[in-house]
Amino acid sequence: MPLKIGTLAVVRKVDELRRVVAQWHRAGDVVALVPTMGALHRGHLTLVGEARALADRVIASIFVNPTQFGPNEDFNRYPRDEAADAAKLAEAHCDLLYAPDLAEMYPAGFAATVSAGPLAEPLCGRFRPGHFAGVATVVTKLLLQACADLACFGEKDYQQLQIIRRVVRDLDIPVRTEGVPTVREEDGLALSSRNAYLSPEERRIAPALHRVLAEVAVRASAGTPGDEAASWGAAAVNAAGFTKLDYLEIRDAESLAPLAAGRPGRVFAAAWLGKTRLIDNEPLPPIPGAGTVEAGGKA
Amino acid sequence: MPLKIGTLAVVRKVDELRRVVAQWHRAGDVVALVPTMGALHRGHLTLVGEARALADRVIASIFVNPTQFGPNEDFNRYPRDEAADAAKLAEAHCDLLYAPDLAEMYPAGFAATVSAGPLAEPLCGRFRPGHFAGVATVVTKLLLQACADLACFGEKDYQQLQIIRRVVRDLDIPVRTEGVPTVREEDGLALSSRNAYLSPEERRIAPALHRVLAEVAVRASAGTPGDEAASWGAAAVNAAGFTKLDYLEIRDAESLAPLAAGRPGRVFAAAWLGKTRLIDNEPLPPIPGAGTVEAGGKA
Repeated sequence: MPLKIGTLAVVRKVDELRRVVAQWHRAGDVVALVPTMGALHRGHLTLVGEARALADRVIASIFVNPTQFGPNEDFNRYPRDEAADAAKLAEAHCDLLYAPDLAEMYPAGFAATVSAGPLAEPLCGRFRPGHFAGVATVVTKLLLQACADLACFGEKDYQQLQIIRRVVRDLDIPVRTEGVPTVREEDGLALSSRNAYLSPEERRIAPALHRVLAEVAVRASAGTPGDEAASWGAAAVNAAGFTKLDYLEIRDAESLAPLAAGRPGRVFAAAWLGKTRLIDNEPLPPIPGAGTVEAGGKA
Repeated sequence: MPLKIGTLAVVRKVDELRRVVAQWHRAGDVVALVPTMGALHRGHLTLVGEARALADRVIASIFVNPTQFGPNEDFNRYPRDEAADAAKLAEAHCDLLYAPDLAEMYPAGFAATVSAGPLAEPLCGRFRPGHFAGVATVVTKLLLQACADLACFGEKDYQQLQIIRRVVRDLDIPVRTEGVPTVREEDGLALSSRNAYLSPEERRIAPALHRVLAEVAVRASAGTPGDEAASWGAAAVNAAGFTKLDYLEIRDAESLAPLAAGRPGRVFAAAWLGKTRLIDNEPLPPIPGAGTVEAGGKA
């Protein structure tokens, strides 16, 4: 029997996780996995709700994966509160928390890596070298550890979602992936564990990121050339008070390649407020005759 | 129902393969996979026999994987004879042949790769760039396509075996890997599909490779310093008539790192006879005080 944190069952070992899942599978249950790094908010709980709707049993995993953080990134200060997370998961009718420690995930001698290829190169890939290799590898591991039937991921991390889909398809990982729309605050700010870093003043500026992306999508859809819409967006993000813009780009919604005419697109941005890096994205319906679009860098 | 080649059932699609395996699993059968590139010889059939002994159901796969061949290697002339292979598998009591085509393995847009890290760097990794990434990726796919309980690999491709073990462990692929000792001709030549390329004169020289490796192991075990034993071996391979020696090295049998005192070692070589590249390896018991050893290049 798994241990419990509050009312939620928790396992910390792959073997134990697989025993529970095998038992569920023998009973004919469909099993869903929601991989997270903890610091759970309504966005994660929406993923659990979606998993709940699609499966008989829901597992959430919490693992703050060091290999997807760069040496100067926020691995050490990333928020961690397992007891609070467990209470939220229990309330969301999650069946099991899988919370492995570092040695369970990366025992001595660990060396393999998974790469998604070109999908990992643009956007955040340009600014966070190694990040997506870390993501692809840890998600592959979590999926193969859990042997779940489906797994839910948020569209907030849209490039990550496309990378995971690519890896699952290409490596024939026997799981169905479900993308779930971004959950937002009333003012449009995408929910993110990193929002907790924002000062009140930064929090006031933050919603501008989504407002600008939505406006870029509207302009591009209305016929403004993509590069012009993106340049306007980059200037608007800077003007709103963001301290640095990593990128604001319109790209193909599936391949993340430069957008070709008639293809569904997506507007992506990553921007800094002090020490906090926020990302967001917004869909763009196919635009007849649309070309490649890119803008970035603080004016 | 799968189609048949002669008396052997064959499937060519992942979905069909998984349906058959799921049916076997529901019946409580243990399922083994023997991945091959076809051109089957007694070495492969020994793998099937080993799988037969360990499992209730045995699948052999045949797929000549282009991504593990370099641009100047023998992908195009690699021997292919599916009907003959199927007859041999049927005789060896294999239950199913899985023979996917290129589009089933690598559909348009395919981009993911698996890397085993440092294990892929020495020995053949130095001479066949990209080879082991191709191997690690295709074997990951085959293992995840088949969802077998165990998979058998020959020690003839010893570096490949260690890489596969590393990838299976690190990515948590739910399969047990079994290494099977090399099968040899009476004169010691390791069975290999590439032996078919040898002219009668080359075939006469070929067994020297194993004779030399065995003698290097004897010398090193008897106290000859490893580098001295390996240098002797390199000279002996060249003197036997091989046209080029890629490497002859003593390394750690598990990590493939330089051999440390008290660790089990292995002697590895790759050598050319005309256009044919042969590899072989030989175990070396732990030698107290043994150091790092390397020799290579035609004298």
